[in-house]
Amino acid sequence: MFESAELGHKLSKAEYEKELPALREALLNTQYELVSKKGFQVVIIVSGVDGGGRSESVHLLNEWLDPRHVETHGMGSPSDEERDRPVMWRFWRALPPKGKIGIFQGSWYSMPILSRVYGNTKLSDLDESMERNIFFEKMLADEGALILKFWFHLSKSNQETRLKALEKDPLTRWRVTDRDWHHYSLYDKFQKTTAHVLRLTSTAQAQWYIVEGTDERYRSLMLGKILLESLRRHLDTGHAPPHSIGGLPSLPKVDDRQLLRALDMNLNVEKKEYEKKLEALQGRLALLTRDPRFQEISVVAVFEGNDAAGKGGAIRRITGAMDARSYQVVPIAAPTEEERAQPYMWRFWRHLPRRGRLCVFDRSWYGRVLVERVEGYCSEYDWMRAYNEINEFEAQLIEHDMVVVKFWLSISKDEQLTRFKAREQTAFKHFKITEEDWRNREKWDDYEQAVCDMVDRTSTEIAPWTLVEANDKRYARIKILKTLCDAIEKALNRRGKKAD
Amino acid sequence: MFESAELGHKLSKAEYEKELPALREALLNTQYELVSKKGFQVVIIVSGVDGGGRSESVHLLNEWLDPRHVETHGMGSPSDEERDRPVMWRFWRALPPKGKIGIFQGSWYSMPILSRVYGNTKLSDLDESMERNIFFEKMLADEGALILKFWFHLSKSNQETRLKALEKDPLTRWRVTDRDWHHYSLYDKFQKTTAHVLRLTSTAQAQWYIVEGTDERYRSLMLGKILLESLRRHLDTGHAPPHSIGGLPSLPKVDDRQLLRALDMNLNVEKKEYEKKLEALQGRLALLTRDPRFQEISVVAVFEGNDAAGKGGAIRRITGAMDARSYQVVPIAAPTEEERAQPYMWRFWRHLPRRGRLCVFDRSWYGRVLVERVEGYCSEYDWMRAYNEINEFEAQLIEHDMVVVKFWLSISKDEQLTRFKAREQTAFKHFKITEEDWRNREKWDDYEQAVCDMVDRTSTEIAPWTLVEANDKRYARIKILKTLCDAIEKALNRRGKKAD
Repeated sequence: MFESAELGHKLSKAEYEKELPALREALLNTQYELVSKKGFQVVIIVSGVDGGGRSESVHLLNEWLDPRHVETHGMGSPSDEERDRPVMWRFWRALPPKGKIGIFQGSWYSMPILSRVYGNTKLSDLDESMERNIFFEKMLADEGALILKFWFHLSKSNQETRLKALEKDPLTRWRVTDRDWHHYSLYDKFQKTTAHVLRLTSTAQAQWYIVEGTDERYRSLMLGKILLESLRRHLDTGHAPPHSIGGLPSLPKVDDRQLLRALDMNLNVEKKEYEKKLEALQGRLALLTRDPRFQEISVVAVFEGNDAAGKGGAIRRITGAMDARSYQVVPIAAPTEEERAQPYMWRFWRHLPRRGRLCVFDRSWYGRVLVERVEGYCSEYDWMRAYNEINEFEAQLIEHDMVVVKFWLSISKDEQLTRFKAREQTAFKHFKITEEDWRNREKWDDYEQAVCDMVDRTSTEIAPWTLVEANDKRYARIKILKTLCDAIEKALNRRGKKAD
Repeated sequence: MFESAELGHKLSKAEYEKELPALREALLNTQYELVSKKGFQVVIIVSGVDGGGRSESVHLLNEWLDPRHVETHGMGSPSDEERDRPVMWRFWRALPPKGKIGIFQGSWYSMPILSRVYGNTKLSDLDESMERNIFFEKMLADEGALILKFWFHLSKSNQETRLKALEKDPLTRWRVTDRDWHHYSLYDKFQKTTAHVLRLTSTAQAQWYIVEGTDERYRSLMLGKILLESLRRHLDTGHAPPHSIGGLPSLPKVDDRQLLRALDMNLNVEKKEYEKKLEALQGRLALLTRDPRFQEISVVAVFEGNDAAGKGGAIRRITGAMDARSYQVVPIAAPTEEERAQPYMWRFWRHLPRRGRLCVFDRSWYGRVLVERVEGYCSEYDWMRAYNEINEFEAQLIEHDMVVVKFWLSISKDEQLTRFKAREQTAFKHFKITEEDWRNREKWDDYEQAVCDMVDRTSTEIAPWTLVEANDKRYARIKILKTLCDAIEKALNRRGKKAD
């Protein structure tokens, strides 16, 4: 894997300086094309062996490019706000918007590799992290991003030579620390681990460029040319998403049985019983969210449903039981300008709650496979890949001690009509019914199909969907509160056991 | 001050329930009007004596209002990311966008009051914090915000009665902590301090509502009615900024002397000397920013100047000397949608650097008193108040160990013409010259006047402007680098002394 990067590549000063001016001018021009088109984001990872020229390369890029449109991230130890969220949160928040170049010195590869070399994790942990990385990069690429990953390599003997030379010179001696020699002693382990990582994660969308790091001029020219040519290609052709899909968007219809139609829409709760149950459940939720162990977890509650299915009322029954400082309701509407300059999932990542808090999403990332699918707001490829992206996203939340509950509030077509008409007649609820609601209603069957596909593909053992029969609002609210309480209680008990 | 709030206000259940339904419906309707108009942001502070009903009131507001458009902030201890920035940063980042209601239980009043009562600060510190608060609220109000500040009061005997009652009941005993009795023992001190604070900070734009907290029904109805009536008034008339200004926008012209014309535009540096000096200064900057003490400060460098004055080139000479992970360049263009939903200064606050970092603003908050003034993008009142707001903003940065340097790059009208023409002829620089540049040029005199006013009003002893004679790019770059190095060195030395 590193063979070509140990050949002793070298450039003379004259050769270097001959190429440089044209390269720099072309780079800058191409960057301005990127800036003015704002078509995609560029993610550059700069990594490699100690002394292979990482810092120097990052520096060079900032010198060659217009630094106003470059964001460089060092990614040292995470802040407490970052530690409260899944590992990838800090990378999501650091993503450059479309038109900009984000340089990561220290990336989603750094910690997994270090931990493995230091012997703190198993090979299977490393592989799991790498799967997550591949997934992340594939998602970025699917959103149009250009991803360039550089690995600057030094042979073992070259690394030794370099350290000794630095130590010999009184002016540079301070640059060599015990950590450097320690890493040198781990050279073979590093090599083995990184070879494994580079092999696993060199994908078509995000390949690794292994560059010999010994000679600064060679290394720099390689870096500049790879960047220039990749930018050029991506600007010309690169970021159109594929249009043909391998699989079927939905299963063929062979009989008449279907998830939503199988729901018993007559389920209901009498008013008296409702009030008793509601009070008990709200009390239970209040206690659960005030439990000291609640500070160690967080809750993400997703609400989707037919128009007028009663999401708002159900949400208020949850928040009404909680300390207002411990929850947040995020209503999902059209994305803002800043959100449109990022991958689809970015606007959900940004709202993830800190530990000890519950976040209600009133509509959610499932919009992609519901309204966007049905209304054709995105391509078939985009919503088809979303199922997978969503499952991966939720798996990361759960891995980070987040409780994920997802509710689909289902009402019958007749019940919806009744509610729409009632809304139109109540002045106070008038704002709640729009032209769009009536239009959506015309596509009832398409939405049903989309919901069934969504449940089939994203109701996982770790984050199952709860289908809520919502023709009777009281029944729906009780079912939702009970499901939520059970999920939180289970998570708290699991922690209780851990502490034993 | 608290007289009316110790009268023993009380409502019967019947009286309360008679009023409630209409109040709730009106509140919700008014909130939806706010949501749909998105005209202004609402900031509600809920504070008061322990046991006066703060949490209950926050809870109630969340129950009465649609929680999807309410953001509640508890504001406990600051995170490390927050401690790295000036005190007010965490409140700025928590501001609700226009159309939303932000409830602060724990606000910019909490820490100053507590610190004073605990005896950790002097009265003059408290007064300083209050001045800052008044300023902040005035700015919010000028940006159209509706600010409501509630203080829930309990008399000393009522507080004692309440604590004892809670302690007597085995079910509520846990709610009374040592801290509660400690605060009770400090009751008189609290009273004295808060009376002082409420008096100082009850301004026309943001008055305090002191509400007797003993009776829950009375307290709740007061809260709801004040909110409803204030929202109604603000929706109908409230948030139009004043249109007549007391003072003169600029000093009358009595002679011909003027700041910019007094600059010696012939200043220049020979190429050889330039290269020597540049290298020395970049080396100095590199060392300064790698000094361990640099991790304790941060630097904000502001670049303003005539079009084509060479800001970009000067910035690259700074960033070129630094580790790419320790700086960030923020180019200021038109505000995004999320930024437009916030007060003017919000989009600058959000970019403030953490400790150990330098942030270059390529154009800045001075846009308000330059391009926005000259082009009429904001009202005279808006840019007139901006001087004061800017000075206050920069004072907060400096107080938080931030070094603030501000450069105005000045070129002559002839030199600009030469550069514009050169840009038009170089394909590579073509993007750098637009119609707008030519249009701005026609308003040369207006811009000159705006620059002189800006310098007169915002070149403070703590954050002075550096006027840079930029007809010669080499001279300009050297002057800028030297000024920056001197400022950082001074800040480091100051810390060095502190550590002794």
